[in-house]
Amino acid sequence: MALLNYLTTNHFDFGAIARLPKEMARLGVSRPLIATDKGIVGAGLLARITDQIEDGAALPVFDRTPSNPTEVAVMEAVDLYSAEKCDGVIALGGGSAMDLGKAVALIAGSGGPLERFDPAQKGTRNMTKVAPVIAVPTTSGTGSEVSVGIIIIMKDGRKATFAGPKLIPQSAICDPELTLGLPPHLTAATGMDAITHCIEAFLSPMVNPPADGVALDGLWRAWRALPAAVENGEDREARWNMMMASTEGAMAFIKGLGAVHSMSHSAGRLPDLNLHHGTLNAVLLPPVLRFNAPGQEERYERLRQAMGLQPGADIAAALEDYNRTIGMPKNLAEMGLTADRVGALVPFAVSDLATRTNARPIGAEDFEALYREML
Amino acid sequence: MALLNYLTTNHFDFGAIARLPKEMARLGVSRPLIATDKGIVGAGLLARITDQIEDGAALPVFDRTPSNPTEVAVMEAVDLYSAEKCDGVIALGGGSAMDLGKAVALIAGSGGPLERFDPAQKGTRNMTKVAPVIAVPTTSGTGSEVSVGIIIIMKDGRKATFAGPKLIPQSAICDPELTLGLPPHLTAATGMDAITHCIEAFLSPMVNPPADGVALDGLWRAWRALPAAVENGEDREARWNMMMASTEGAMAFIKGLGAVHSMSHSAGRLPDLNLHHGTLNAVLLPPVLRFNAPGQEERYERLRQAMGLQPGADIAAALEDYNRTIGMPKNLAEMGLTADRVGALVPFAVSDLATRTNARPIGAEDFEALYREML
Repeated sequence: MALLNYLTTNHFDFGAIARLPKEMARLGVSRPLIATDKGIVGAGLLARITDQIEDGAALPVFDRTPSNPTEVAVMEAVDLYSAEKCDGVIALGGGSAMDLGKAVALIAGSGGPLERFDPAQKGTRNMTKVAPVIAVPTTSGTGSEVSVGIIIIMKDGRKATFAGPKLIPQSAICDPELTLGLPPHLTAATGMDAITHCIEAFLSPMVNPPADGVALDGLWRAWRALPAAVENGEDREARWNMMMASTEGAMAFIKGLGAVHSMSHSAGRLPDLNLHHGTLNAVLLPPVLRFNAPGQEERYERLRQAMGLQPGADIAAALEDYNRTIGMPKNLAEMGLTADRVGALVPFAVSDLATRTNARPIGAEDFEALYREML
Repeated sequence: MALLNYLTTNHFDFGAIARLPKEMARLGVSRPLIATDKGIVGAGLLARITDQIEDGAALPVFDRTPSNPTEVAVMEAVDLYSAEKCDGVIALGGGSAMDLGKAVALIAGSGGPLERFDPAQKGTRNMTKVAPVIAVPTTSGTGSEVSVGIIIIMKDGRKATFAGPKLIPQSAICDPELTLGLPPHLTAATGMDAITHCIEAFLSPMVNPPADGVALDGLWRAWRALPAAVENGEDREARWNMMMASTEGAMAFIKGLGAVHSMSHSAGRLPDLNLHHGTLNAVLLPPVLRFNAPGQEERYERLRQAMGLQPGADIAAALEDYNRTIGMPKNLAEMGLTADRVGALVPFAVSDLATRTNARPIGAEDFEALYREML
């Protein structure tokens, strides 16, 4: 079993979930709140977790995580955490459930409300304490199990990013076994999230060569494994590699992300459409890479190497082909976005945290043009 | 400035040495022992460090680190540490001075003698406490500033490796400025140490994809920068990249190393020859890569990408050319090793810690053949 001792203690392999009781003991957690969603419960994954713990079936469970987590849901879960006198969180699921679980632990440790921690208001310094979190991903994409961030739709409608080293879960248990049943469409969409993390983190102008290396290894791995995992969900090697690429993508985005995420966060906050984050990333990645290309010759050449493309090949076109192969939509119109919504999306993209680390400076007009190009 | 928050807190950039007083305060060190060697003092680098600290010139200095550090020297430095009532170590120099400084901190924290910590005797568990270490490299190669290991020639003649997470310095200050004056031959030899770390760590069978990515980024960087740094020591970009590759090589070798290091450690312990570790690695790398090739097609292809070689190119031959370009010797005979010494080297190579993680199982006959090939 690989023990990755970089940021989080990450137990990573088929069967790793058996480590759960030991990790609870190590972190001094005896009554965790399990933060998850109804899809996870329905897929039988909650039972797979509680089976590992003595009297696990009696643990408090919050399973009402929305598909994009909201501040309202976080506060409901915090109430349950308090009422049940919990002493830690098992964050079980995809990015939404893990982010919700991390937010609960933050408020349990440092007090609410969430907006106290807004990085735009220098709120990271208010993150004085976070209750212990054991993150158990059931998709391969978000990497929230090792990341410094959480993304929550606030009561005022913003999709806000909170980030700080204390938000890195103290323990991650990455067991690819838990992803074998993930259906092809979600495998593809979450997998494209991981690929986007690797590419945008690598292109971020922040200086962090080790993170660059981690990003390229993740891209190398995911690029080969994702079509196989979509084709056959029981392909264990492909599932292992996708989960590793997901973890690597999130280790790398300590460098920040870019305009794909800015645009994706902005469109993802529309409550009536409820667009999937990974699918948005998949669709937005090719046009943003065309926009970012000037001055990136050397970095793009390294991306091509990782993707097994010929020198000088069109990376954006290769991604469009790839999206087609794994069943991603061709544009935002196919996802239900209409031209009249674009104007309202732009300011949220401009102010998104990821805009600051895009490979190339990008402004409101650029975002508007990119959204319109993808309708 | 890049803040690398992986294993060590690593302040990395030109001018980073100005952080020294802050790092001392952060670690609660007010009276450090400066562990270094006479070459560093002679090059004026000790003064560059003590100038940063109030009353720095009055700090106790141990400058008698041998070019391969010995247990005898470690114990002399420990005596000075105790006599001067020190509360931490500034380990200033190349791998030898940093390893000696780390060994002093280990004994100061956990008690001696060194052999209590022998990993072959499960001694890592005796590493209960290590005094604070601020590592300040003055060469780009060893990466000891972020590594879990130290290598010391014991009183019984073995070149022993000690390893444990507590041996990672709590702070590293990587200031490429300190390497600008390093002469071409030492630049080349230490640089080949970094390149060997990246290659052997990447080829180690231990599973750690993030470390693989870090290794390949280090190789990519060093392969391009080293000839420039050898050609012109004042090339700041090349010096920055070499120091980064050195740090990355050591971050990566948490996966372990391979037969180049086994053979190099064994030959490096001969007191009459006093062979340079990096130079030995440079000479031994091509034949060991030829030996390791079977079954490594995919990994070798990724090495070729990092090195900018054509698909299928002969990596060992490329390294031989490279060694010639940067002035490394062609073989061990040029370094003064004679055939009659080989027999005595083999058992030390077999039992070296790095042998366990060589890309391919390797035994006494293989080591003997490889040594003889390089005479």
